[in-house]
Amino acid sequence: MQKVPDLGLEADIRRVEECIEENIQSDERLLTEIATYVIESGGKRLRPAMILLAYKSVGATEMRPAVELAAAFELIHSATLIHDDINDGGTMRRGRPAAYKQYGILNALVTGDFLFTRAFGIGGRFGKKVVAITVDTCSGLAEGEIRQKRNIGNVGLTREEYLAIVKRKTAGPIAAGGRIGALVGGGSSGQVEALGVCGLNLGIAFQMMDDILDVTGNPRVLGKGKGSDIREGNLTLLTIHALNDAPPAERVELARILQSTHKSPEDVERASGIIADSGAIQAVAEEARRFGSRALSAVEARDDLLYIEDLRELVTFVLTRDH
Amino acid sequence: MQKVPDLGLEADIRRVEECIEENIQSDERLLTEIATYVIESGGKRLRPAMILLAYKSVGATEMRPAVELAAAFELIHSATLIHDDINDGGTMRRGRPAAYKQYGILNALVTGDFLFTRAFGIGGRFGKKVVAITVDTCSGLAEGEIRQKRNIGNVGLTREEYLAIVKRKTAGPIAAGGRIGALVGGGSSGQVEALGVCGLNLGIAFQMMDDILDVTGNPRVLGKGKGSDIREGNLTLLTIHALNDAPPAERVELARILQSTHKSPEDVERASGIIADSGAIQAVAEEARRFGSRALSAVEARDDLLYIEDLRELVTFVLTRDH
Repeated sequence: MQKVPDLGLEADIRRVEECIEENIQSDERLLTEIATYVIESGGKRLRPAMILLAYKSVGATEMRPAVELAAAFELIHSATLIHDDINDGGTMRRGRPAAYKQYGILNALVTGDFLFTRAFGIGGRFGKKVVAITVDTCSGLAEGEIRQKRNIGNVGLTREEYLAIVKRKTAGPIAAGGRIGALVGGGSSGQVEALGVCGLNLGIAFQMMDDILDVTGNPRVLGKGKGSDIREGNLTLLTIHALNDAPPAERVELARILQSTHKSPEDVERASGIIADSGAIQAVAEEARRFGSRALSAVEARDDLLYIEDLRELVTFVLTRDH
Repeated sequence: MQKVPDLGLEADIRRVEECIEENIQSDERLLTEIATYVIESGGKRLRPAMILLAYKSVGATEMRPAVELAAAFELIHSATLIHDDINDGGTMRRGRPAAYKQYGILNALVTGDFLFTRAFGIGGRFGKKVVAITVDTCSGLAEGEIRQKRNIGNVGLTREEYLAIVKRKTAGPIAAGGRIGALVGGGSSGQVEALGVCGLNLGIAFQMMDDILDVTGNPRVLGKGKGSDIREGNLTLLTIHALNDAPPAERVELARILQSTHKSPEDVERASGIIADSGAIQAVAEEARRFGSRALSAVEARDDLLYIEDLRELVTFVLTRDH
């Protein structure tokens, strides 16, 4: 799993990991085991990096609060991954069987609840504003998940609807991380807003690159089967582009595959080919770069934020990672 | 659904219901619909009654904080019911199809997450102590669920293990309600402790009566199939008693039924008969009365608590309800 660049955050990220470990302890060893299984498998640590950087960028230096909040957001992220895999029927996650495949739906479901709970235990210590942002983010995650599933196989999905889902599911927590990091770091309301906008746009760029990698990537490096969005009937900006720009016969074929409930590996391969040939990958990469630029502009527009160079590196990482 | 006696709480319970309704609103109408479906079907409102009474019993009169916390605990309770039904495969709940049967596993799972989130949104406004109690309660719910499932079909289940599960799954939230009600009402640490002990014992008595009703009750009144514990291989104090006290041949037969993975309706009927004939129902009812007495003693031992008579009525309700 490719991780975010160091950015001088290595020691803090390690402390985030220790804090996560402390917060997943339970008398019920199976809960700790499943939580460890999910969290150990890593992830890119983009969310903690955003919180830590936002916190430092407003001039805060005593890192403990940011470390704890970053841990809380990773716990929420892990809970969501566990529940989403149950919902999607996704069998692999980060190169290992999904938790529900390894431990059964029941145990996985309860572990997700447990992780949400522990995350709120941390967040609840930081006062009303942090709680409100966290609750809005988690409500958004639930709403985004429902909205995404409502659009399974919907070949009429619009760009606006795609963005509405991404804002709730992926970009929301990163935006919240920017806002909370800045808020708890003592930033002004303008700084909080700027880092929120930065996180939101960074998150959208991240999701677009993720969509691209799902079509082009190497499944052994990705840690999940390539073409999982196509297989699950999950439309992305790539499919929206291809359904507009591919030659007419291929558009029809792509729509048929996306709408069918049983897709053969050949169907998935064929749909990926149509998407790749349509120029959608270049178009979406271009869009991702645009959102990456917006992420940076939001913070560059201010002269009272530190660590802009590190935020720039984070954006570059998101736009150039290959898995 | 039989509800707790009025106890002068009617207007407050209505406000709890209004507060719940406010807190389940979402742009994603399906979330609100499923949440409404689950919450509308009622429940006995024992948890809100405990919080409201604990709050009043320490002399607090401005009811809004207690109303909000009671709503939060009902939201947590509803979230747990939705997820537990997915785990148990329970098809009926309160006389209607379980949420996951009506709306699908995915939508039900996400609605549970959404309700947890909104509950924490309320609880998080009440400061660190309330958050800590709520988080401990919710961690306990997850732990209890795992522990119960670990013991499915375990005919060697001990009384201690049964109580450990009940304390986490049923009694924990009622104990927490007693503590939180007293705490937010401005009670002393002794009062908080006493109302916590009261809630814990009341909750244990409640679960024991629930176990009895599952064997003896009228399913049309119960709102779920009679014998659901037997069907699911869920051992209770009743089965523990019967496995000790029934004639040897019947003990063997009961154990065989409880351990088998596929139980016919006749098996369930037969197991219920063995339990009833063993004297287990009287023995467990006696135990429930003992826990009910402990619930009362905890509050009667103090001379600085109000509404003792109402708490007594609540205990009586728990011990005498017939569905």
